[in-house]
Amino acid sequence: MSEVNRPVMVLVRPQLGENIGKAARAMLNFGLTELRLVAPRDGWPNPSAGPAAAGADVVLDRAKVYDTTAEAVADCAHVYATTVRKRGVTKPVVGADGAARLIHGQEGRHAVLFGPERSGLETEDVALARHILTVPINPEFGSLNLAQAVILVAYEWSRIGRELGAGEETLVQPTAEDALPPAPQDELDGLIAHFERLLEPRGYFLPETRAEATRRTLRTVLTKPGWNHLEVRTLRGILSTLEREPRQ
Amino acid sequence: MSEVNRPVMVLVRPQLGENIGKAARAMLNFGLTELRLVAPRDGWPNPSAGPAAAGADVVLDRAKVYDTTAEAVADCAHVYATTVRKRGVTKPVVGADGAARLIHGQEGRHAVLFGPERSGLETEDVALARHILTVPINPEFGSLNLAQAVILVAYEWSRIGRELGAGEETLVQPTAEDALPPAPQDELDGLIAHFERLLEPRGYFLPETRAEATRRTLRTVLTKPGWNHLEVRTLRGILSTLEREPRQ
Repeated sequence: MSEVNRPVMVLVRPQLGENIGKAARAMLNFGLTELRLVAPRDGWPNPSAGPAAAGADVVLDRAKVYDTTAEAVADCAHVYATTVRKRGVTKPVVGADGAARLIHGQEGRHAVLFGPERSGLETEDVALARHILTVPINPEFGSLNLAQAVILVAYEWSRIGRELGAGEETLVQPTAEDALPPAPQDELDGLIAHFERLLEPRGYFLPETRAEATRRTLRTVLTKPGWNHLEVRTLRGILSTLEREPRQ
Repeated sequence: MSEVNRPVMVLVRPQLGENIGKAARAMLNFGLTELRLVAPRDGWPNPSAGPAAAGADVVLDRAKVYDTTAEAVADCAHVYATTVRKRGVTKPVVGADGAARLIHGQEGRHAVLFGPERSGLETEDVALARHILTVPINPEFGSLNLAQAVILVAYEWSRIGRELGAGEETLVQPTAEDALPPAPQDELDGLIAHFERLLEPRGYFLPETRAEATRRTLRTVLTKPGWNHLEVRTLRGILSTLEREPRQ
């Protein structure tokens, strides 16, 4: 598959326009733009959706409305029904991560169905799906809302895509700015020697019988950080400052 | 580590009570219950939080309030600063999944800092952290809200925990020395304060206009190592020694 496979998010009979907007916002954060609505309770467009989308208007503008779930997924080869409840259906169950791997790995359009806020998907919606998509949650408090379910699916699609190397150029990967390597050993040795020069005349390495162990401890503590050369320079400056007499 | 390591979620100067409630709901979905609030704008308790928590009252009831971020993480050995923006800080960057692996793998308390809704974390909050936690998002539309950021971190903590729990026999056991966690934040703060006490009268923080940046650099250099409490004690001893007059 040469192109990145982006799933279609299908909200089935969503109740509140605000939640449709939030779902759009959640999608666009991770680069998903195709939203489909099945029989939204308050019609479409819905004036509450725009403000909740917080700028994700492109997703709302392109949203398509269908009368039935079957029509909404008619062009899709792979359908996932999200549900937090166990149902008596004999379909394979995947997590959001497992679904993401299937989406990236299998050609054809993938659609993820999300049920209405209060009741979840009906049995006939679930019947359209080949997989159940579920997120294991606290058994004593299962209360994922619609936009939260959407964002977890979108996030995993994005995360797994990066893991697989798909669509790298479309997402910001923060550069690890700790790229500066640890300072070379001679700079570290210079730092340790500077410490020793200040500590020695103040009796830090006494008694003599413990001196070797104390030096080893000092080296261990100063080696552990892996300070880079800028940081070692900062510490040398600190030690030079400590050599000065304090002003009154 | 025999027990599951549950991170503390720290909301820094949150603005809306509704968002605090939603964050609590997001946490409890994945079994996290320890919420800390730093200087919530509208005080605490906040009447808007309860309805938004949708039943996660146990999290709100136990929430603790602090005046400063430093106080909120004083007992934590590992602090993560969540940010979507790139900053010129030299700290390792991890995703929500990487952070989850660290949380499950390293002893000591872990705290995740989330900034205010509009502005995000301030530089001095980020300075307290050893890691930057970021979620790669759409560069043209980066708009994760507070509760969404919380749920992604909580979800990954839960997902990785299950992943690691599935193959418990294959887990790499850290050696005894690795097992000592970084010292709690208040011990680190004590060390930094000791450095500052010695450096201040020697003019290290001059000129005044650079003082704040210099203090931040000092904190960054001393935060990076993740020294354990024995190592911090060694360094306190070194500083006490340096306060003495050298013998001739």
